[in-house]
Amino acid sequence: MTVISELVAALAPEKVLTDPDVTDSYARDRTFLEPGRPLAVVLAHTRDDVVAVMRWATEHRVPVVPRGAGTGLAGGATAVEGCVVLALHKMTAIRELSPADETAVVEPGVITADLDRAAREHGLMYAPDPSSYEISTIGGNLATNAGGLRCVKYGVTRDSAMGLEVVLADGRVINTGRRTVKGVTGYDLTGLFVGSEGTLGVITAATVRLRRAPSVYPATIAAEFTSLRDAASAVSAIIAAGCQPSLMEMLDRNTLKAIDDWRNIGLEDSTRAMLIAQSDAVDGPAVSERMAELCTANGAAFVAVSSSAQEAEELIGVRRMAYQAKERLGKCLVEDVCVPRSLLPDMIEKIEAIAVKYDVLITTVAHAGDGNLHPVFIFDHALTEPPPQVWAAADELFRETLRMGGTLTGEHGVGLLKRRWLALETGPVTEEIHHGIKRVFDPLGILNPGKAI
Amino acid sequence: MTVISELVAALAPEKVLTDPDVTDSYARDRTFLEPGRPLAVVLAHTRDDVVAVMRWATEHRVPVVPRGAGTGLAGGATAVEGCVVLALHKMTAIRELSPADETAVVEPGVITADLDRAAREHGLMYAPDPSSYEISTIGGNLATNAGGLRCVKYGVTRDSAMGLEVVLADGRVINTGRRTVKGVTGYDLTGLFVGSEGTLGVITAATVRLRRAPSVYPATIAAEFTSLRDAASAVSAIIAAGCQPSLMEMLDRNTLKAIDDWRNIGLEDSTRAMLIAQSDAVDGPAVSERMAELCTANGAAFVAVSSSAQEAEELIGVRRMAYQAKERLGKCLVEDVCVPRSLLPDMIEKIEAIAVKYDVLITTVAHAGDGNLHPVFIFDHALTEPPPQVWAAADELFRETLRMGGTLTGEHGVGLLKRRWLALETGPVTEEIHHGIKRVFDPLGILNPGKAI
Repeated sequence: MTVISELVAALAPEKVLTDPDVTDSYARDRTFLEPGRPLAVVLAHTRDDVVAVMRWATEHRVPVVPRGAGTGLAGGATAVEGCVVLALHKMTAIRELSPADETAVVEPGVITADLDRAAREHGLMYAPDPSSYEISTIGGNLATNAGGLRCVKYGVTRDSAMGLEVVLADGRVINTGRRTVKGVTGYDLTGLFVGSEGTLGVITAATVRLRRAPSVYPATIAAEFTSLRDAASAVSAIIAAGCQPSLMEMLDRNTLKAIDDWRNIGLEDSTRAMLIAQSDAVDGPAVSERMAELCTANGAAFVAVSSSAQEAEELIGVRRMAYQAKERLGKCLVEDVCVPRSLLPDMIEKIEAIAVKYDVLITTVAHAGDGNLHPVFIFDHALTEPPPQVWAAADELFRETLRMGGTLTGEHGVGLLKRRWLALETGPVTEEIHHGIKRVFDPLGILNPGKAI
Repeated sequence: MTVISELVAALAPEKVLTDPDVTDSYARDRTFLEPGRPLAVVLAHTRDDVVAVMRWATEHRVPVVPRGAGTGLAGGATAVEGCVVLALHKMTAIRELSPADETAVVEPGVITADLDRAAREHGLMYAPDPSSYEISTIGGNLATNAGGLRCVKYGVTRDSAMGLEVVLADGRVINTGRRTVKGVTGYDLTGLFVGSEGTLGVITAATVRLRRAPSVYPATIAAEFTSLRDAASAVSAIIAAGCQPSLMEMLDRNTLKAIDDWRNIGLEDSTRAMLIAQSDAVDGPAVSERMAELCTANGAAFVAVSSSAQEAEELIGVRRMAYQAKERLGKCLVEDVCVPRSLLPDMIEKIEAIAVKYDVLITTVAHAGDGNLHPVFIFDHALTEPPPQVWAAADELFRETLRMGGTLTGEHGVGLLKRRWLALETGPVTEEIHHGIKRVFDPLGILNPGKAI
């Protein structure tokens, strides 16, 4: 019996794909990274399927790359040569949803927005909302500790993860964490698995925290500034005034220009930045008026304030166009640095200087309230990977970020893409600890090898 | 040179205490647990002192028990025989406080309430507020992942910990986490150290998140119920209505009776439970009226609503008397179970049944919004430790908690006190992982041996 036929026997033939044309479509994420060739793709339907794969993989020392929807931006789910891609998108059960406890137990293949919609039927919400939330899975969100636009008020994915069911590298199953809001028994394994990019175990279910859904549409403002520093001052003023925005995004001129070229938003020549902020509080309209005043007081040239749900949707719509507008300009290397919020304007100015120095087009959107920036390095559609000047520019960006006390990745993960800079942030002792922890969970090194750490 | 004289030489004579009368006072926490005799107590003033202790301890294989203020309730800081107690309460610097980034960098000996007060000078707050916050240290709070009364709105200590400076068992220093709100580089070592009860490393500084301080006094209600189920229904109704209380405490009849016997609060014979709730929102008075209505609608016999800061203080004052009132009745075994919030009334009824079955006086206060209960088993002042029927009652409590999907400890930690029940919650595979992680950080097993895991 071949190694693969043993896998087929342990599962079912239709769950094991080996046709290279098919497996190739499961080998990539949203990056340009060229994957290795998978031995097979397994479509797991149940936890027991995952157990069977991991037992088999341990027996035969086959690397396993867990995969959600493949919407990752760092190469975390990129196939490695000779691996099994363990696709979890068929595990879509919401096993439980308890309005009384404000919790849900979900499988990894549940689409993020589907969980949010299921919660809203009970007046609740699932807060984490990565930009990909209509197509990304909860499992992928957990693996990368995904952020999103609402993080500024509600925190990241880890803040909503209470407990996990995890299949270990050898096929054993553990339950981490709990179903309660608080709990301090044992080490925080839940937090450890979240963000570990499939290198420590395969998450087959999660108990997540739900929150009360806002009862009103998010009151929204969009402010245009002729100076980045003014826009950043407005951000600080809004935070300092205790407005608690539920979203606060900043778009630089290059981003606005890309959107304007595509959809004509009437961009003024003098506009250097746009700030879009929302409040989902009960007194949201009053808060949004206050935020608008603070923008004006900090030099905004123009501020629009929504007076209806539809207007709010139109104002935030500009932000939603950003990524597609950029993709029209070329291939994108999407970065994800995060700095202390007060250094946001310094970082944006640094990015502009880097763009000039290396003659690279960089467009930047920032989750301004979090200090999390997405500089997108745009390069020729015809190239398969970024040219040297883009890598050089990215290298300078990362080093500058770390000098400012920031981090390489706010919400996308290290994956493959940021591994070569990882040691600059963590240092050798932490690296040694990371690998020590990895060995505790995965002594054979078969779980998503070469990623994250 | 003796082992201790080497330690003295590495530090300074006044930092190393060896007089048994003195060291004994550093050997205990707030439990009744009888400690081992420490070899010495080190009063660390700097990170370098901690480094020196850990290098020396590694060289000589001496166990080290890190200690904050000794306010723990689970024996986490109880000295073990022949150890060095590493006292961190002299490391009291607030190294930085950034209003713009809403962060502070603090040393472990800072008193929790002192950090909160320092933050309030800038319109900010440090949210975690264990009941001991006027005497507990940040280091101890981090080691136990301490909870508190405001958790129901602001989360536990881990939710405020962004990054740590940690001295490892061998004296090497690492920095975990970051100074930014978001960040996903590497495994979540910050979360792992928080709640690890000094078994993985010694925290010598923490970057913590501050939040905007409420601009108003917390509008407060106190409601009396003739039925526990009614009180619990009111809790659920308040949560479901989206009131977002900043505190929600339930006191059972035994607790109220203990307070009434001491301070005469005019307790009615029919009162079975009191619910105290606060809102620190801008519209707190309106929210508190709404919470009062919901109490009435769910059968409250009487509801008081504060109309001034002083009245609010008086209403919450009853809760503050609870622990002292109990200590008058006897020695206390303080427990800390946590159940899914919807099972709070079931748990309270179970506790009442256990009290009858084992003929033990149990008084219970609950952080009702979190499902976190503090049943206090009261026994004779003359005894040095709980009599068998108290342990039997506690044993049944723990098993019942786990059957309900709860956890042994919501916020106090496992320490020594709950170790014998630990495996019931974690299971053998997770235990194996805990010990594997422990070995990565502390291969010689010198850090707080016998605790937490």
